Amino acid sequence: MKLATLKNGSRDGALVIVSRDLSRCVAVPHIAATLQHALDNWDAIAPRLEQTYAALNAGAVADAQPFDQLQCHSPLPRAYQWADGSAYINHVELVRKARNAEVPASFYTDPLMYQGGSDSFIGPHDPIYALTEDWGIDLEAEVAAITGDVRMGASVDDAAKAIRLVMLVNDVSLRNLIPNELAKGFGFFQSKAASAFSPVAVTPDELGAHWADTKLHLPLLVELNHRPFGRPNAGEDMTFNFAQLVAHAAATRELAAGTIIGSGTVSNKQGSLHGSSIENGGVGYCCLAEVRMYETIESGKPQTGYLKFGDSVRIEMRDADGASIFGAIEQTVTHYRERG
Amino acid sequence: MKLATLKNGSRDGALVIVSRDLSRCVAVPHIAATLQHALDNWDAIAPRLEQTYAALNAGAVADAQPFDQLQCHSPLPRAYQWADGSAYINHVELVRKARNAEVPASFYTDPLMYQGGSDSFIGPHDPIYALTEDWGIDLEAEVAAITGDVRMGASVDDAAKAIRLVMLVNDVSLRNLIPNELAKGFGFFQSKAASAFSPVAVTPDELGAHWADTKLHLPLLVELNHRPFGRPNAGEDMTFNFAQLVAHAAATRELAAGTIIGSGTVSNKQGSLHGSSIENGGVGYCCLAEVRMYETIESGKPQTGYLKFGDSVRIEMRDADGASIFGAIEQTVTHYRERG
Repeated sequence: MKLATLKNGSRDGALVIVSRDLSRCVAVPHIAATLQHALDNWDAIAPRLEQTYAALNAGAVADAQPFDQLQCHSPLPRAYQWADGSAYINHVELVRKARNAEVPASFYTDPLMYQGGSDSFIGPHDPIYALTEDWGIDLEAEVAAITGDVRMGASVDDAAKAIRLVMLVNDVSLRNLIPNELAKGFGFFQSKAASAFSPVAVTPDELGAHWADTKLHLPLLVELNHRPFGRPNAGEDMTFNFAQLVAHAAATRELAAGTIIGSGTVSNKQGSLHGSSIENGGVGYCCLAEVRMYETIESGKPQTGYLKFGDSVRIEMRDADGASIFGAIEQTVTHYRERG
Repeated sequence: MKLATLKNGSRDGALVIVSRDLSRCVAVPHIAATLQHALDNWDAIAPRLEQTYAALNAGAVADAQPFDQLQCHSPLPRAYQWADGSAYINHVELVRKARNAEVPASFYTDPLMYQGGSDSFIGPHDPIYALTEDWGIDLEAEVAAITGDVRMGASVDDAAKAIRLVMLVNDVSLRNLIPNELAKGFGFFQSKAASAFSPVAVTPDELGAHWADTKLHLPLLVELNHRPFGRPNAGEDMTFNFAQLVAHAAATRELAAGTIIGSGTVSNKQGSLHGSSIENGGVGYCCLAEVRMYETIESGKPQTGYLKFGDSVRIEMRDADGASIFGAIEQTVTHYRERG
């Protein structure tokens, strides 16, 4: 089943069921007006949504409308929890190698995870707003899962069963603010801007064999200013799968329905720590920071700059037939003064 | 105006207006069914709530009910954002002094703040659940503010105007998990359990002259196992006021209505860094970690243990006439297996 949230002037938007091919959609206010409401009552509501989804795919829903990704909010325009892991250790290894530091052994057994802001996500086609380019604006292309309720101390198996939906995310980071902020010891706050999620969130069964061991085994396609920038496989080099990340988050507290857990920036080893750009035959990158780390390792300092006002980012994932699964995140970096 | 949320079996509970003396309350589903809904539409809804509040205090609301704090959720049972500052630098100075480290100069100009979990708070009279005492369960008695919408880069003046409600909070911390977690560099996650807020949240005007410079100038009363443990004045030694904390949180992103900003553990200098217990004539403490730091400074190691199953915590604040302003947070530490 594929679900999305259309903008309707309210803070939570309107839940719609989207056809598998992303061509049509239908609102279902008699079943669930918002995605959060559906997640709050998933066991009762999901079967009814699935019925409508089947009918929509069969062309049997009379009031179906064309699905327009440009009208989408993030599936949850605001959420009660957004916790982002850092499951692709290659990314961490690169950061450390660029400054000649070792990766602690515990990083291979104990996931890195930070608590992110979730009060107001940006839509998948909304601008990335910033007050200045000096913040060092970077994309981070990731996969994310939305959970149901999870008990404190849940096993990895129980955590896997709690995964309700899967989507893509651009976890916008303000790189130049990170060193000073992390040095304070309390983690990210000002250095993380509002994130954007893919127009469509899908149930794991929708991913077929590509969803295995709670990892999504497909390339994550990233374009920067309309040119290919990354296509690493999100199922490769993922040290912790989603079930492990959910269990980590629930170790000392309950998670409530609608919790979003991120994978961290997707990153493939590509045979060596140095990786390779798409132009050079590699799978490229999912954030600019990695390019800069490669450059630092190769030549002593970074050459590539962070995002500038006017730069655009596109993040998408396609199935074996080339069809877009989640729709595309497509955003342009814009000065906040242009916000309405 | 005083507002609370009664448990009614739903995730968000039922908003009630509470009389100034905390004796009576009335639900107002025709105005706002939940506190989040009121915050989402504050300018339109608050004046109508204020009208009913005035009538309730005048004894002119026919369907008023007795107000029972035991039936309360936290005012926001779940929230879209909970960000906790550490505005009482005495607390930070103690931590550092206990390990012979300097406090960085920037800590006096740049607030410490961490992003907390907000998906499922616990009620003010609910147990503090944990799977083991080995986590090092500690209270942290604090003041918190709930904001309306705040623009990115808001000034301190604009941040002050966005403060809608004030309440108390017990930010439960798992001390023994903190050192390893902070060493990973991403801040708190597993080391912070679910927080509990006071039964009642109040508008700043309700605090009269005690609310000045967006600080709450009254003693915060903490009891441990029914004995006085702390009564520091929350208006003293607060290096950053609430307006500064809100502006810090909004520096690089918008804050959405219903954002909760915490003060951090209230802590008074008491003339020296070593402070003093209530038994010794001082104002005592708002967390066990401070006692242990004093002990470490005095004698080389801590003697006081963290909370055990069965221990109780009470947090309250009284006005000049001795009347409870927010009701009391009163919780007993309980094994999670006793959770229904």
